[in-house]
Amino acid sequence: MKSVFFFADGQAEGNAGMADHLGGKGANLAEMTNLGIPVPPGFTISANLCLEFLESGKLPDSVVAEIRDAVDRLERATGRGFGDEENPLLVSVRSGAKDSMPGMMDTVLNLGLNERSVAGLASQSDNPRFAYDSYRRFIQMFGEVVHGVTDHLGQPNRFVAALNDLKLKRGVERDIDLAPDDLKELTQLFKEIYKSETGSDFPEDPWAQLVGAVEAVFGSWNTKRAIEYRRIHKIPHDMGTAVNVVSMVYGNMGEDCGTGVVFTRDPGSGENRLYGEFLINAQGEDVVAGIRDPEPIERMKARLPQAYDQLLQTCDLLEEHYKDMQDVEFTVECGKLYLLQTRSAKRTAKAAVRVAVEMTAEGMIDRRAAVARVSAEQLDQLLHPTVDPSAPIDLLTTGLPASPGAAVGTVVFDSDRALELGEAGLDVILVRRETVADDFPGMVAARAILTSRGGMTSHAAVVARGMGKCCVAGAKEIEVNEQKLCFTVNGLTVWEGEWLTVDGSTGRVILGKVPLVEHEASDDFATLMSWADDMRMLRVRTNADTPADAARAREFGAEGIGLCRTEHMFFESGRIEAMREMILAPNEDGRRRALNKLLPMQREDFLGIFRAMDGYPVTIRLLDPPLHEFLPHDPLELEDLSGELSLPRVDLERVVAELTETNPMLGHRGCRLGITYPEITEMQSRAVFEAACQARQEGVDVHPEVMVPLVGDVEELSSQERVVRETAELVFGEAGIRIDYLVGTMIELPRAAITADQIAQSAEFFSLGTNDLTQTVFGMSRDDAGRFLPSYVEKGLLRSDPFQSLDQDGVGQLVAIAVERGRSTKKELKIGICGEHGGDPSSVGFFHRTGLDYVSCSPFRVPIARLAAAHAAIDHGAVRG
Amino acid sequence: MKSVFFFADGQAEGNAGMADHLGGKGANLAEMTNLGIPVPPGFTISANLCLEFLESGKLPDSVVAEIRDAVDRLERATGRGFGDEENPLLVSVRSGAKDSMPGMMDTVLNLGLNERSVAGLASQSDNPRFAYDSYRRFIQMFGEVVHGVTDHLGQPNRFVAALNDLKLKRGVERDIDLAPDDLKELTQLFKEIYKSETGSDFPEDPWAQLVGAVEAVFGSWNTKRAIEYRRIHKIPHDMGTAVNVVSMVYGNMGEDCGTGVVFTRDPGSGENRLYGEFLINAQGEDVVAGIRDPEPIERMKARLPQAYDQLLQTCDLLEEHYKDMQDVEFTVECGKLYLLQTRSAKRTAKAAVRVAVEMTAEGMIDRRAAVARVSAEQLDQLLHPTVDPSAPIDLLTTGLPASPGAAVGTVVFDSDRALELGEAGLDVILVRRETVADDFPGMVAARAILTSRGGMTSHAAVVARGMGKCCVAGAKEIEVNEQKLCFTVNGLTVWEGEWLTVDGSTGRVILGKVPLVEHEASDDFATLMSWADDMRMLRVRTNADTPADAARAREFGAEGIGLCRTEHMFFESGRIEAMREMILAPNEDGRRRALNKLLPMQREDFLGIFRAMDGYPVTIRLLDPPLHEFLPHDPLELEDLSGELSLPRVDLERVVAELTETNPMLGHRGCRLGITYPEITEMQSRAVFEAACQARQEGVDVHPEVMVPLVGDVEELSSQERVVRETAELVFGEAGIRIDYLVGTMIELPRAAITADQIAQSAEFFSLGTNDLTQTVFGMSRDDAGRFLPSYVEKGLLRSDPFQSLDQDGVGQLVAIAVERGRSTKKELKIGICGEHGGDPSSVGFFHRTGLDYVSCSPFRVPIARLAAAHAAIDHGAVRG
Repeated sequence: MKSVFFFADGQAEGNAGMADHLGGKGANLAEMTNLGIPVPPGFTISANLCLEFLESGKLPDSVVAEIRDAVDRLERATGRGFGDEENPLLVSVRSGAKDSMPGMMDTVLNLGLNERSVAGLASQSDNPRFAYDSYRRFIQMFGEVVHGVTDHLGQPNRFVAALNDLKLKRGVERDIDLAPDDLKELTQLFKEIYKSETGSDFPEDPWAQLVGAVEAVFGSWNTKRAIEYRRIHKIPHDMGTAVNVVSMVYGNMGEDCGTGVVFTRDPGSGENRLYGEFLINAQGEDVVAGIRDPEPIERMKARLPQAYDQLLQTCDLLEEHYKDMQDVEFTVECGKLYLLQTRSAKRTAKAAVRVAVEMTAEGMIDRRAAVARVSAEQLDQLLHPTVDPSAPIDLLTTGLPASPGAAVGTVVFDSDRALELGEAGLDVILVRRETVADDFPGMVAARAILTSRGGMTSHAAVVARGMGKCCVAGAKEIEVNEQKLCFTVNGLTVWEGEWLTVDGSTGRVILGKVPLVEHEASDDFATLMSWADDMRMLRVRTNADTPADAARAREFGAEGIGLCRTEHMFFESGRIEAMREMILAPNEDGRRRALNKLLPMQREDFLGIFRAMDGYPVTIRLLDPPLHEFLPHDPLELEDLSGELSLPRVDLERVVAELTETNPMLGHRGCRLGITYPEITEMQSRAVFEAACQARQEGVDVHPEVMVPLVGDVEELSSQERVVRETAELVFGEAGIRIDYLVGTMIELPRAAITADQIAQSAEFFSLGTNDLTQTVFGMSRDDAGRFLPSYVEKGLLRSDPFQSLDQDGVGQLVAIAVERGRSTKKELKIGICGEHGGDPSSVGFFHRTGLDYVSCSPFRVPIARLAAAHAAIDHGAVRG
Repeated sequence: MKSVFFFADGQAEGNAGMADHLGGKGANLAEMTNLGIPVPPGFTISANLCLEFLESGKLPDSVVAEIRDAVDRLERATGRGFGDEENPLLVSVRSGAKDSMPGMMDTVLNLGLNERSVAGLASQSDNPRFAYDSYRRFIQMFGEVVHGVTDHLGQPNRFVAALNDLKLKRGVERDIDLAPDDLKELTQLFKEIYKSETGSDFPEDPWAQLVGAVEAVFGSWNTKRAIEYRRIHKIPHDMGTAVNVVSMVYGNMGEDCGTGVVFTRDPGSGENRLYGEFLINAQGEDVVAGIRDPEPIERMKARLPQAYDQLLQTCDLLEEHYKDMQDVEFTVECGKLYLLQTRSAKRTAKAAVRVAVEMTAEGMIDRRAAVARVSAEQLDQLLHPTVDPSAPIDLLTTGLPASPGAAVGTVVFDSDRALELGEAGLDVILVRRETVADDFPGMVAARAILTSRGGMTSHAAVVARGMGKCCVAGAKEIEVNEQKLCFTVNGLTVWEGEWLTVDGSTGRVILGKVPLVEHEASDDFATLMSWADDMRMLRVRTNADTPADAARAREFGAEGIGLCRTEHMFFESGRIEAMREMILAPNEDGRRRALNKLLPMQREDFLGIFRAMDGYPVTIRLLDPPLHEFLPHDPLELEDLSGELSLPRVDLERVVAELTETNPMLGHRGCRLGITYPEITEMQSRAVFEAACQARQEGVDVHPEVMVPLVGDVEELSSQERVVRETAELVFGEAGIRIDYLVGTMIELPRAAITADQIAQSAEFFSLGTNDLTQTVFGMSRDDAGRFLPSYVEKGLLRSDPFQSLDQDGVGQLVAIAVERGRSTKKELKIGICGEHGGDPSSVGFFHRTGLDYVSCSPFRVPIARLAAAHAAIDHGAVRG
């Protein structure tokens, strides 16, 4: 087995297909060489050796021989000698795994320098300053990177300290103000430091330098940081990293030299023009050190016209070859262009869409590739305003990025105040420890919601995402004082009325007003999405509770409603009163009187939703939350309610206390309400069917689907189904028309999944409620998980938040069981999913594979789900059309 | 297919093995006839016809012919004529399904009477009063039972009203004071009522009477009550009922006649002597009507010596034949004994044990039959005092029978008061809405616990059962006012200090002091249990948290501890303080200081438990409940604690508020505590291993098993396992000895069951926590289920409380998955169950079938589990030894 892959002069032993062995960087260096693109000669040591080295602690003799041979070839290719005192061969040594991975050893430059060869470099470049500066940097880098000389207790390491001392002694501020002799003196000082830190002399032998650096690269595969990174990003631990050894070229040898980075297209807008920066007479390091500001790439045309033309041609060649936008590093040494790296360029969502569509128009890629190339998760950027990345910010803290977008407003601490100021036209940010159902009107009125408690699927997060409203949740450094109307964070206090900027895409909480950038959906976006729609198998519905949400979701491409939560309609003022009357009624008669008040309101809502979803199915879930969510708990509100209802305060408090639950998530909710109070199910069914009949009379194509929540046993479902069907018959009789409708259930309890074959006997459809299913399968309350999930992620116990991305090992197995057993009873059972995971790309892939009919998600995630569904179809070779 | 089975004169077409077709009653009548026991001739119409009749609405012609033939044979056997005016054949018609079942048509007597035959009966019996009384009763019964003439709006039906009118008119009080002519008049009146109620004439034709009665019996299979009963008792709906038509014999034709009921042994004590009652010159009805009091059976010897001797012989014959104690109905007509029914007798647990053991000694049955014959559930009676069944009681309300036994005491409403009075030697009953961990000391001090909220597995119920202490939970008619120190129930108020009797076996709450009956375990009990132990495959451990519980459980036969809840040790005074200090500590150092105080106490507990369980394994669960359970919530207590800890009240309240959880069941508990605070796991492990080392040095044979709770992912378990094993190594190093120990986990979350193959990689044993598994699989909080479970049971949606008896369809499937997947990774994985279901007989059967190694239950249920395990082994042909 060959371990070392040489490349030089248009011929490489590797190619782009060998990234498993050569790493991304090495494979592309080989590929470019083969393409005839000027790349400095060099060789790549295969990643296969990495684990072998880590096991045995030494490089096999055969490999050492191969490296020796490669160095010989490199000497021949460059005409230089390794350690030569006149024409020294100097190399860079870099790690390069298949997946780009921080935490590993980065770069050692100028390897090959020693007391003899530094003189050669000085005379050859006619620049002793440059030569000794390179040498002292190499000693430092070798000490730091290869031997781990580090800072101690916050003090800079001894190399840096020595440099600073010398500058102080010489009375200069900048490194470059030191004289060549100063630098030469420094090399000696550095070698002493090296010896005292490592216990051995600095290796004069370039060969020893090289072996040391290669071993250090291999060793860095198993640093704690690298292991952690792989665990989090699910990169296998047994891949290893390759090592790239490349002959040095210098961009800092004069005015006909330079270095730069370019993108083959604009990574921000996607525009097809070269985009980047360069610097005359400089090395990459100088840019990083901030010594000089780089210039826009266009200016290179005037400064280095020949190299610029060559760069343009090379970029075209690379794009044409890789069929994708590239991110390229180059150096010009004495007028000659060298490519040091090329890779697929990172880009904004906007750019990704434009590049994909334009490349398809250019005939470079096909539609499938175009669709595959735009990340679904990234689309979020296109649908929400973002914080201007160029604006300076005063970051207070970071919470969970619970609902994307950014917003600016003044701080308020309660829902009523938010409503009052919001209705007065002010931009407010609602800040609370956590939100409850009561806060809904204030959340609607606010620009953004910020909570100090709760996770990605806390009430605040779920409701905000449903509205497409910015939300940062669980910002646990914040202590909210709702009495004093302020919050404190890291010693700073923010009072009601102060300006705040909240970034729900990143979780940032920023003091003051920061400019925002709005994005608009382009024609390219529409084009790409239409291609995606043609490819996907999964239908995409939305979770929407109001006609306005339904209409908006339809604009985003929703093909029906997968979840309409009827309870949200009850929180509005004018309705909550009747709802409370119902809850507090002493008997069925009283409940029916209150329900009769709610009936016309609920019917009106459904009618609006049916109109908005003309031609599409609308799944309406029966009342789900525990009744106490509708009652006030605050003493003042209780007093008010007691007055309104002429119910003595003590009786009211008794009812509130009686309804209080230890674990409301596992309490009297879902179909359990409809079973104890069938009149609620009756009223809701009547509202659905009356609205459906009226819609039909208006000419609307209406497809109601009534969904029974929290079913654990088929008997629960069939008991509720009976009430729904009997009510439907009554209404159809009264209206003189019939509407086709379905009755089905949420599958959101483990027992429902396990007994899905029984449940399917009474269900015409299943909708997987993966939010609650995740809570019950893990035994983890999403409202309370904030207390321990962070330490899970910190300790690497959890690969991802199961409330964001479906836990395929656990919850996913129950989903698969539900699908398989449900369809074993009813082959054509319609099955969808309406949990938060419906808008998560990796989960959408899972749902595609599991054979679901549709996913349903919040309106703003509909485009993401559409694209993710297309990706799933492409990945599994099941593209439609 | 034959449909009618005749029996007379020592020859029957059926037998005891045909209960599926003939029902229990009919099969035994046939069997007795074949045995030569005097049974009135008759025939049974097969239950097979029942469904056919219900389908078609009429009896097939062939069956009618068979019945005609049977009546002919009956006429020949009795020498009487059906409808004959001189010597009429009269019959009773009774339903009789395989399983005894209320709700179906019961009995029509004297069928065959009409205007002509009544005269025959009068002259034959020389008793016109008797004849016309029989006739008017028959008309009434036929109207009521066959044609459903019923009471209206609380008024007695018209037959009863007419009888009452006539008595008023005649100025008499009792039925028997009416003259024969009055009764004759009444028969005419009754026929008019019959016609006006049913729209047709009363059938004079005996044949029409018979067909009507048979059809009514078949029809009664599908009354609402019968269907409901079958659903609740899991009796199949497609069995149908048989109909028994038996020639009448009369115990009321003179002083040489009588009727009675006897048990072949004493059903209370099990003593081998005839036990029962009889009445001279009477029919069964007279006993029911309470007109005369029956006499003890012994007196029959003097009154009807020949019949008595015959009865004794018959009882011996029946026992010998059926190999079981019988419950027999008989009638003596003119000195001649007739057996009307025999069946296996109901008996108390005490009797069951004695009868089983004595019948084995008598050689009647073998040990296996003896063990099989005693119901495990019934054993509870033997282990707890019960309310004296003969004492009058003033029943206040009925709650859930949460923990068996009965207790008398004065009412208190808080734990401290219970402790104070309890320690002063008073008997108190602790009454609370629901109990929390804080109430533990008060629960220990109380004789019984009564709560108005919570289900069979609420905190109160679980803790009480663990202590073998009487508890009635969820008595929802009770409103507890803990401020005013009283509770009200149905308008009555009971104040602190009043006497109450609580019956945890039946759920009764009784005002005042009622005498209790103590039971003592007999030698027979010990004998039977030793037989059971020889047969069972499942080991039986106990859930015990203290040395005292452990010792008691061992007396009950426990073979180790399956669950030691370490947190219970923290609630004791002197410990809770250190626990609170730990919880409120601002950092790890503070927590470690507090934990160091807890270490010696915890070690001492473990040492005591190891000593008590010398030679047996002890499974110790790491800290499980959420930390807020250890903090006070009451303002006064908070004030005290604030003083004790010198922590400002406001800071203390902040911590308490921060720790409050929305769904504590799904919150920061179980291994999640040990993961965020590994120092807790460290302290507990240290206590376990230090105690184990010390026990070993004392010569105790110690087998600790450390159990990690609430694991959902193998990473959680392995992270805790590491802490446990590292601590073990440290302690073993310090002590200079090694102890064999196991590390395992609870399987109590659906995800743990589903990923059991992964979890088994880090686990040496599984313990199925079916309490929490039931909660998460159903998505049902046991503390909150009281609000809706009753209406589930009422509506027949739930066959049984899944917290009492394992839900085999849902939870059971996950148990089976956990066992199968766990053992797929580790073939010899030790698996037990430590949920409440470990003491439930039907669940124990399931665990046996699923291949578990042991069950663990509260000390008082250990004998029940031992017996149930033996039953499971017998039922599945896998008896040991």
